[in-house]
Amino acid sequence: MSRPRVTKIINCRVLLDHKIVHNAYLWFQDGIIIDPQQHFYDARFEPDEVIDAHGRLVVPGFIDAQINGAFGVDFTTDAQPEVSDETLRENLAKVSKGLLKFGCTAYCPTVVSAEPEIYHRVLPMLRPQPGSVHGAAILGAHIEGPFISHGKRGAHRPHVLSAAPNGIEDLYERYGEELKERSKTQEGQERAVKIITVAPELEGILDVIPELVDKGVIVSIGHSEAKIADAEAGVAQGATFITHLFNAMLAFHHRDPGIIGTLGSTHLPIPSKGQGHPSPSATSPDATQPDPRPFYGLICDGIHAHPNSIKVAYYSHPKGCVLVTDALSAAGLPPGTYPLAGREISVDDSLHAYIKDTTTLAGSVITMDACIRNFVAFTKCTLVEAIEAATLHPAQLLGIVDRKGSLNVGRDADLVFIDDSNGPDQFVVERVFVGGEEVVF
Amino acid sequence: MSRPRVTKIINCRVLLDHKIVHNAYLWFQDGIIIDPQQHFYDARFEPDEVIDAHGRLVVPGFIDAQINGAFGVDFTTDAQPEVSDETLRENLAKVSKGLLKFGCTAYCPTVVSAEPEIYHRVLPMLRPQPGSVHGAAILGAHIEGPFISHGKRGAHRPHVLSAAPNGIEDLYERYGEELKERSKTQEGQERAVKIITVAPELEGILDVIPELVDKGVIVSIGHSEAKIADAEAGVAQGATFITHLFNAMLAFHHRDPGIIGTLGSTHLPIPSKGQGHPSPSATSPDATQPDPRPFYGLICDGIHAHPNSIKVAYYSHPKGCVLVTDALSAAGLPPGTYPLAGREISVDDSLHAYIKDTTTLAGSVITMDACIRNFVAFTKCTLVEAIEAATLHPAQLLGIVDRKGSLNVGRDADLVFIDDSNGPDQFVVERVFVGGEEVVF
Ligand SMILES: [Zn+2]
Ligand SMILES: [Zn+2]
Repeated sequence: MSRPRVTKIINCRVLLDHKIVHNAYLWFQDGIIIDPQQHFYDARFEPDEVIDAHGRLVVPGFIDAQINGAFGVDFTTDAQPEVSDETLRENLAKVSKGLLKFGCTAYCPTVVSAEPEIYHRVLPMLRPQPGSVHGAAILGAHIEGPFISHGKRGAHRPHVLSAAPNGIEDLYERYGEELKERSKTQEGQERAVKIITVAPELEGILDVIPELVDKGVIVSIGHSEAKIADAEAGVAQGATFITHLFNAMLAFHHRDPGIIGTLGSTHLPIPSKGQGHPSPSATSPDATQPDPRPFYGLICDGIHAHPNSIKVAYYSHPKGCVLVTDALSAAGLPPGTYPLAGREISVDDSLHAYIKDTTTLAGSVITMDACIRNFVAFTKCTLVEAIEAATLHPAQLLGIVDRKGSLNVGRDADLVFIDDSNGPDQFVVERVFVGGEEVVF
Repeated sequence: MSRPRVTKIINCRVLLDHKIVHNAYLWFQDGIIIDPQQHFYDARFEPDEVIDAHGRLVVPGFIDAQINGAFGVDFTTDAQPEVSDETLRENLAKVSKGLLKFGCTAYCPTVVSAEPEIYHRVLPMLRPQPGSVHGAAILGAHIEGPFISHGKRGAHRPHVLSAAPNGIEDLYERYGEELKERSKTQEGQERAVKIITVAPELEGILDVIPELVDKGVIVSIGHSEAKIADAEAGVAQGATFITHLFNAMLAFHHRDPGIIGTLGSTHLPIPSKGQGHPSPSATSPDATQPDPRPFYGLICDGIHAHPNSIKVAYYSHPKGCVLVTDALSAAGLPPGTYPLAGREISVDDSLHAYIKDTTTLAGSVITMDACIRNFVAFTKCTLVEAIEAATLHPAQLLGIVDRKGSLNVGRDADLVFIDDSNGPDQFVVERVFVGGEEVVF
């Protein structure tokens, strides 16, 4: 009887299979959600531990596919040579830990456009690592740039930007071993590069996309002046994500809706398998097949896009929506001036974050739970839809649905207990579990 | 037994209650769809006439809420003093007749911005009149302008545009008795003014909107530089339509999506009654109430808006979509030069219609059946959804669902037999009935 302890959550509602199941139980063992009937063949099996959820809604831990830093930490700035490895590790741990109380249990630390040395230095630190009560899981790095458009660079520094005239070799040179070498490290670690944001209209990029996809990298379109034809070409080549839809791209023009127009695409090649693509919906080109349209990140802070714009986008492609914070080092801190990749960002009283002395938005200071609340308020969607945009959809995008993004049997017991008694757009994160263990705040 | 003849259509599919009913019958008498069981209390009642539809799909006649002319006729140009009353009537009849073979059985002749004399002259000719096998029904005039924005006037002549500093008096002066006097004429005719397109940001217009609505006029927002706040104010005041969404308005910008952004509005006042408003849908602010968002006209010619833009708009507010042709005098004619309100319009080989020697689009040369086919191809919606956007939705907008827009009992027997055997985006209009009588082509 040396089996790991079995825990049962009672008196809860559970988000399961796109529905809220009332009067439900949730069982887990060794950090993994289990079906007790399947495991023990004994209907009267007693758990080692019972947790009373007091009627709370239990949902999967939130997954943030784009976060530049938080709590004073900026992942790109940290990669400067003058920062010690130890400080870098401590800062990463600080962010991982700080995110938990907002319900975020897994994330992709995001590095903005930088010199080769920066990537070579920081990427090995951002390899995937499991979560624990001490910090959210790291799912690998989201590298945003430098293969992006000058015209839509936002807060990225111009002199580090690049095209890829020599194809993937240019990317190897910039990002280093973590992209080039994709087998696990000697220590058994997966490689760091999970998502790369590129501008498909740049020289060499379209050809690079399938090579990246072959290497297991998720390609996202963003910081780009792509017209609809460029954007659809990028998706046809294998891009499956749009980086912070609306921001740092051409505005939606009705006669050429640009990247945003891929939400209305009907003629993209149907993916041969569903993995990594949005589930079919009523708005899919073919509702019986995986949706060939990309997932798209939305920063729901009420600043980066008007609430009505969020709503129009969402209903045109509901299963593709992925809520992201795009949070800056200032997230979780008071208004002031903070670093982003060697620049200064001013955060004002209404939590707008601009490049200092400009009106260029430079990311957000929002947390994922607030994103989800805003999303409900902006779109009037159900809480289930909003939560799935922060759990199931990013897990689908990242190809980790077998481990995260839902509360199905076999998934990590990354749980968020929500008090939604004041309405779906006013919910509060009350308790958080990572791998079956409760986080103490 | 002097009752009117009863006709039964057999061997057809019928669009009824948002579905295609197979192996259906359709009965009508005296031009009105009937339920024979209700009428005759005799299950073995025999019709006077049986029409075999040979398996065709029977749908309601199409309704076009915006059409400037066709077949060489331009309603605004026709209002010039040098055109005789007789010619004007003949030209109107020519359009009414010509539209039938494209399945359009009712329409709103549209007059663009002009001088008072023009309206005073032409509006009395555009009073509602029933349809017949000789021509589509006229549902009253759609007056587009002159209370519109200089910056978004499109093909409208600048010197006739106006604001309304004196409120509705300015509109009376411009449009004349057909707006001011709303009771029926001595001959029992309804008054001509059915829809007025205005720019809500112009002086005086916001206050005029509820007065127009009180007079039974449908107010549409268009040819306008309205920001989202202006547009929502216009809707809150009573506007229920958007004139040719996307065209002649500010582009959709994510931080201020303008008029287009009303498709994503969540905070508009809920209408006290459903009449004149879109049916609730999953994207409504409150799915149990009439939708407070406006209907919106779409020109589905593949020129005025990119197919993907049409798709994004549609799924954000599916029950509000109203297909319009915005057809010009050149519709139904070969490429060449044609009049529009005193201007010359060039139609090139690819059927783009521009103000001569410019790149300003000036309406379309498309027919309603082609609009519907394009709409299916662009959005991948069902044929039912597409047909409803050309039948039920315009009837709801115009407040005539008791007479037109569906094949429910009591509605006019305006019928279109469709051959959709080559797919929903390739259907062909085969036979057309107006008021229960078949049109001979
Ligand atoms: Zn960015
Ligand atoms: Zn117009």
